[in-house]
Amino acid sequence: MSKNLLIAQGGGPTAVINSSLYGVIRQAQASGRVGSILGARHGILGVLHDDLIDLSTVDDKTVEGLKRTPGAALGSCRHKVQPEDYPRILEVLRNHDIGIFLYNGGNDSMDTAMQVHRLAQEQQLPLHAIGIPKTIDNDLPVTDRCPGFGSAARYVAQSVRDLGEDIRSLPTPVSIFETMGRNAGWLAASGALARRFPGDAPHRIYLPERPFHREPFLNDVQSTYDEHGWVVVVVSEGLKGPGGKPVYASAEAAQVDAFGHTLPGGVGSYLAGLVTGKLGLRCRSEKPGLCGRSSILLASPVDRQDAEAVGRAAVDAALSGRGGVMVTLAPRTAEGEAPVTGLVDLHEVANREKTIPGHWINAAGNDVTEAFVEYAKPLIGGDLPDYARLEAPSGGRQRT
Amino acid sequence: MSKNLLIAQGGGPTAVINSSLYGVIRQAQASGRVGSILGARHGILGVLHDDLIDLSTVDDKTVEGLKRTPGAALGSCRHKVQPEDYPRILEVLRNHDIGIFLYNGGNDSMDTAMQVHRLAQEQQLPLHAIGIPKTIDNDLPVTDRCPGFGSAARYVAQSVRDLGEDIRSLPTPVSIFETMGRNAGWLAASGALARRFPGDAPHRIYLPERPFHREPFLNDVQSTYDEHGWVVVVVSEGLKGPGGKPVYASAEAAQVDAFGHTLPGGVGSYLAGLVTGKLGLRCRSEKPGLCGRSSILLASPVDRQDAEAVGRAAVDAALSGRGGVMVTLAPRTAEGEAPVTGLVDLHEVANREKTIPGHWINAAGNDVTEAFVEYAKPLIGGDLPDYARLEAPSGGRQRT
Repeated sequence: MSKNLLIAQGGGPTAVINSSLYGVIRQAQASGRVGSILGARHGILGVLHDDLIDLSTVDDKTVEGLKRTPGAALGSCRHKVQPEDYPRILEVLRNHDIGIFLYNGGNDSMDTAMQVHRLAQEQQLPLHAIGIPKTIDNDLPVTDRCPGFGSAARYVAQSVRDLGEDIRSLPTPVSIFETMGRNAGWLAASGALARRFPGDAPHRIYLPERPFHREPFLNDVQSTYDEHGWVVVVVSEGLKGPGGKPVYASAEAAQVDAFGHTLPGGVGSYLAGLVTGKLGLRCRSEKPGLCGRSSILLASPVDRQDAEAVGRAAVDAALSGRGGVMVTLAPRTAEGEAPVTGLVDLHEVANREKTIPGHWINAAGNDVTEAFVEYAKPLIGGDLPDYARLEAPSGGRQRT
Repeated sequence: MSKNLLIAQGGGPTAVINSSLYGVIRQAQASGRVGSILGARHGILGVLHDDLIDLSTVDDKTVEGLKRTPGAALGSCRHKVQPEDYPRILEVLRNHDIGIFLYNGGNDSMDTAMQVHRLAQEQQLPLHAIGIPKTIDNDLPVTDRCPGFGSAARYVAQSVRDLGEDIRSLPTPVSIFETMGRNAGWLAASGALARRFPGDAPHRIYLPERPFHREPFLNDVQSTYDEHGWVVVVVSEGLKGPGGKPVYASAEAAQVDAFGHTLPGGVGSYLAGLVTGKLGLRCRSEKPGLCGRSSILLASPVDRQDAEAVGRAAVDAALSGRGGVMVTLAPRTAEGEAPVTGLVDLHEVANREKTIPGHWINAAGNDVTEAFVEYAKPLIGGDLPDYARLEAPSGGRQRT
């Protein structure tokens, strides 16, 4: 007897989260072993509110369009499942005869998937709960990479390369580019992929993995300016001082969500003020924020392929009787090769964060090493466009 | 006898400023009536420092590449020409036997072009000084539009459409998107081009042309949230309160350049804090900043065509004996039609700013009218990509 499938999306969207949804729908249809394909609106809240969409009836053009649609097409949430939610979750899953429960998200969402899996086991519900990885932060453990990261990394690399061409030609000689990334610096690190020639932007990269000190930072900016006459620095929004406290907390940043996470942002603007105040250099900041995870036009085709593959693999895993696991991606071996997936127990990934390995960060803590670039470069899916250069521009000191 | 040509780039770059440079080089070569084609590095400073590049010797691939290169390939500046600079300017122009002087920039740069023109006339130098318009701010008078605006407008429209898909699916229900634009709201207004269906982002647009009041703004956010469950607002970085004072001035924003302009930015983050503090709604802000004028991949092909055309027209004007004028663009009549250029005296454009006409802003001062959309839509060069929608997501109140 065929089982009904329920898919939900949790946490922050990515440029390719709907490619995973696409993979789930297409693999379920192709299997011939799935009954209704249902989607929960706004993550686990869709279960609690019995707010489900029948994806089996969605027209073909819309399903194909999911591969190039930003946001979470089903709607997302950050609700933390509590034991008092259990009866209602069970009731809705039973009412809809759900045999496969797929949750697509990051660390917090894997906690939701794990709770549903345990609940089903305790209640002897014949349900296969599978996690599908997704996060621009690339901070899920075990998996080589997280779908969503490659596209957001490409956005950062492309934007920083473009910004570098702008700033090197300008009388405002310093820019601080702020990326998302609360505790893990993968996205800020990806700024390194913008470089083509020595001296290219970004000149320095600061990550939440290393305590941030104001003086070395200001010295870095000044010495780069003295050498090149212009400076582009990439910082993670989650930069922390020596005591683990955020380097800067704006009113905007003081907001807290259901998982206890604050809403970061604003450190770039703060550091720009610091550079001007302390060094007397005109400095500005750029913070694309959510634009960096919702741009389809700057997304990575490799990342899109990964996202679809983990969706398809989750359906296969459930149909082969697995549950309580998350789909993983194995390291890439060759260009053009299809993604290789695996499975890992949810309790090994739920609520855990993978930060950048120590040896991928340089000794001074103000850049990444070549090993990081080798890891990340294939994930952004092809070279960035080259730009014309007439001659090396003279130093910014001559521009005012 | 053939004349040498000197071209310089001033002020902030655009995604297509180098397309104007391309147009100048190609038109000068094609004319057979120009001697050396020289480029001044970092605008008028390149003249003062006798820091010139011979563009005649640049290889063909690099010249072609200019059409898809961000930043100002020659380097830019914000130096305000003073009478004490005149002897040196004359000396360098004479030494290099310059007969055509082209300055590509915005309001301030047209002042530079005008001073060089007057100086040449006073000194009876056989020199034709022509201004080539360029500014993402679209605030030069007389011309229908400014090269650089269409691309930056496309970037804003695309980013806001993408951001809308993200925010409508999210538990963080409000985002403030900040655009560049000190005194003129053309770029913020372009956010309106993101809309496809009623209820789409952006829900409100605030411009520097209208005094900003906190209470109506907060009421707008609350009522939009009550109606849709999510809110995307676009604000210009140059928002001013009733007394003409900036709504928010950060440390970063307190910096002043040689023309007395402050470095704006940060109002989006400030307003996000206000929304949270006063309305209790989670709110964030996005500020792509310079990324919005340096993205080649999101640039407008119509804008690129305009930029090349004004470069070519400037060469033609000089060769036909004109001087002391800026090239203008006539209103577009039909799609696919080549840009039609004209000329205007520099004193009619130098140091003047064109803000959005009053009847293109709605009565409440929180949106643009359909007339603005009709003006701006053709300039971004083609429709933005459509996205798939499963069903209208439920309100944000259910997402936490």
